[in-house]
Amino acid sequence: MMLERFGHGGDLLTAQELFGIGAGKFIDFSANMNPQGPPACVSRILRDYAGTIGQYPDPASRSLIKKLAAHHGVSELSILAGNGAAELIDLTVRTLQPKVTVVAAPSFVEYRDAALKCGSAVRELALAPEAGFRLTMQGAQTLLATLRGEGLEAGDTLWFLGSPNNPTGQLVDPAIIRKLLIEGEQVVVDEAFMDFVPDAAAISLLEEAAAHDRLFVIRSLTKFYAIPGIRLGYMTASPESIGRIRALQVPWSVNSLAQQIGQAVLADEEYRKDSMNWIAEERPWLENQLQALGLDVYPGAANYVLFALPRGHQLNAKLLQQQLGHRGILIRDASLFNGLDDRFCRIAVRLRKDHLALLKEMKALLERKENLI
Amino acid sequence: MMLERFGHGGDLLTAQELFGIGAGKFIDFSANMNPQGPPACVSRILRDYAGTIGQYPDPASRSLIKKLAAHHGVSELSILAGNGAAELIDLTVRTLQPKVTVVAAPSFVEYRDAALKCGSAVRELALAPEAGFRLTMQGAQTLLATLRGEGLEAGDTLWFLGSPNNPTGQLVDPAIIRKLLIEGEQVVVDEAFMDFVPDAAAISLLEEAAAHDRLFVIRSLTKFYAIPGIRLGYMTASPESIGRIRALQVPWSVNSLAQQIGQAVLADEEYRKDSMNWIAEERPWLENQLQALGLDVYPGAANYVLFALPRGHQLNAKLLQQQLGHRGILIRDASLFNGLDDRFCRIAVRLRKDHLALLKEMKALLERKENLI
Repeated sequence: MMLERFGHGGDLLTAQELFGIGAGKFIDFSANMNPQGPPACVSRILRDYAGTIGQYPDPASRSLIKKLAAHHGVSELSILAGNGAAELIDLTVRTLQPKVTVVAAPSFVEYRDAALKCGSAVRELALAPEAGFRLTMQGAQTLLATLRGEGLEAGDTLWFLGSPNNPTGQLVDPAIIRKLLIEGEQVVVDEAFMDFVPDAAAISLLEEAAAHDRLFVIRSLTKFYAIPGIRLGYMTASPESIGRIRALQVPWSVNSLAQQIGQAVLADEEYRKDSMNWIAEERPWLENQLQALGLDVYPGAANYVLFALPRGHQLNAKLLQQQLGHRGILIRDASLFNGLDDRFCRIAVRLRKDHLALLKEMKALLERKENLI
Repeated sequence: MMLERFGHGGDLLTAQELFGIGAGKFIDFSANMNPQGPPACVSRILRDYAGTIGQYPDPASRSLIKKLAAHHGVSELSILAGNGAAELIDLTVRTLQPKVTVVAAPSFVEYRDAALKCGSAVRELALAPEAGFRLTMQGAQTLLATLRGEGLEAGDTLWFLGSPNNPTGQLVDPAIIRKLLIEGEQVVVDEAFMDFVPDAAAISLLEEAAAHDRLFVIRSLTKFYAIPGIRLGYMTASPESIGRIRALQVPWSVNSLAQQIGQAVLADEEYRKDSMNWIAEERPWLENQLQALGLDVYPGAANYVLFALPRGHQLNAKLLQQQLGHRGILIRDASLFNGLDDRFCRIAVRLRKDHLALLKEMKALLERKENLI
């Protein structure tokens, strides 16, 4: 059995089974969660929630969508809330029913899974380690030309791109997406980690999607606000697209606690500021320390870091994950992403004390001479 | 605008917009919720939930499914948890992809909607008011013969039946379902309200479904335990079917609070006993009182009552709903169900004091001589 038996990080119950340590006792670098924990308003809402759990959720998430619309300056008609970003990924692909879905390699496995579930073929756009796993205009145009050469017309293909991309942390240059749109392509941009990007407003396509027929932007509130347990995502697209996507959504998909918490966290400017200060400080520090250990580090824009173990070292990602797991530390074996070999690991940016604990164990493991296997 | 603008009862926000009364101030007979409110364990769980909201839900709902399996005496492999019964209705139809979906008229609109969403044709099985809206063996066999006559073979059709059926409260005789299964048909039984039925164990097909290739039973925990805000349903089917259905489910679909609450409420025997005592007392009492008002009452087995206004009376369902709404009381306009005319209303069984408030207003409205429109 492996830690990612359900395909993802953050599975503390499987970790408990694997490593014999209580689920709540791990330092979890395998899920990309803001380590500040949930904003204070969450406790306040939980205190009062017994009073409304007995009522159905608003089927249209009206109050939440009103707040999101004001927050981003887009029309309420261009926003849909979802049971986590995962639901919106699934609904969007099912709505568009592309013949071919283009996914970057490496990228979040749900894009591929959602495509395969609805019978779409999947084409991989290989991201090169030499280019720091950045998507290039030339790479996109070459693949587009290939697809056209195979007879696929505009509208047949859906490009599903993460920005920042998971697990690489690389942003997609908006110019590439605009070029694809000009060529008639459909593009979904998963901006689940965009809140961690300092100049997000300049690079996000969220507003643009609200008024474009073929552009879709998905956001998550669970990573930045550390509330993945309750599930909450949203997306922007043209009002016409939002209507089509919503038609496939099951009623009351967004529970009422998520709706209430979503409204409250959006108003918490202080939490946002504190988090941006934390990430500005800790990500570069962590990247430097990992480099100092002799690892190949791929600096990104999100709240996680991709690195590769030294070539020829007895440690590979799987082994490092196991060794750390037995020491109460969880990391993501990134070799499970298409396009990455067994040297690659992904870790969340956490608090300094967590980093120190991780770095100490990793240093010892990297320096160990005796056989680890 | 109508109260059921999103197709269902319990929409307090729309009620507030329509009737100018605060969403929390209505006596809500339009949603079929246990009026005891959530069990005490819910408050305890909410108090501690801030400690785990920062972790992903268990993607496989393992602890909850273990409890459900023990509770019902079926294998864990035969159970799937869902983001409300609504998600399981949708997933099951999408998995089976029937050519034709048979739904009773009247019945819960989501069966039809789920079928239409995935391109299935819908055939209605008319339930006769003269038979108290009970599904009869003859009715089922006649329709089956018709379908076969049209060239539809076993496996082409999915029968989607509620037991107790909503809005009629009628149970489906298991003999009818077994007959359909013998003929090779596929049957989903929605037992969302089965917990309210005194001799549920004798009539439920939940265990049978766990070991049958073509039988699927859906349950809800939100009605009986009054927790619709957080969304929680489950289903039983053969392990092979559960595997296929789960393959379409999005990751982390069941939030962690729902998983925690689900485990706790199953253990609350006292709440269950109190609720069974309440329903045994209040449903017959309410039915009698409604009859005494001169209404046509259709006694059922669930926690709601279907009735029809007197023929020729100026009050119809829509008008009664409006008049009561302005008085802070919400009922379901059942004329919106296919197969029912504008005399039909559905009300939840609630507490005696709520019944008295409703009956007083209804009596006055029924006796009023001046024009109501």
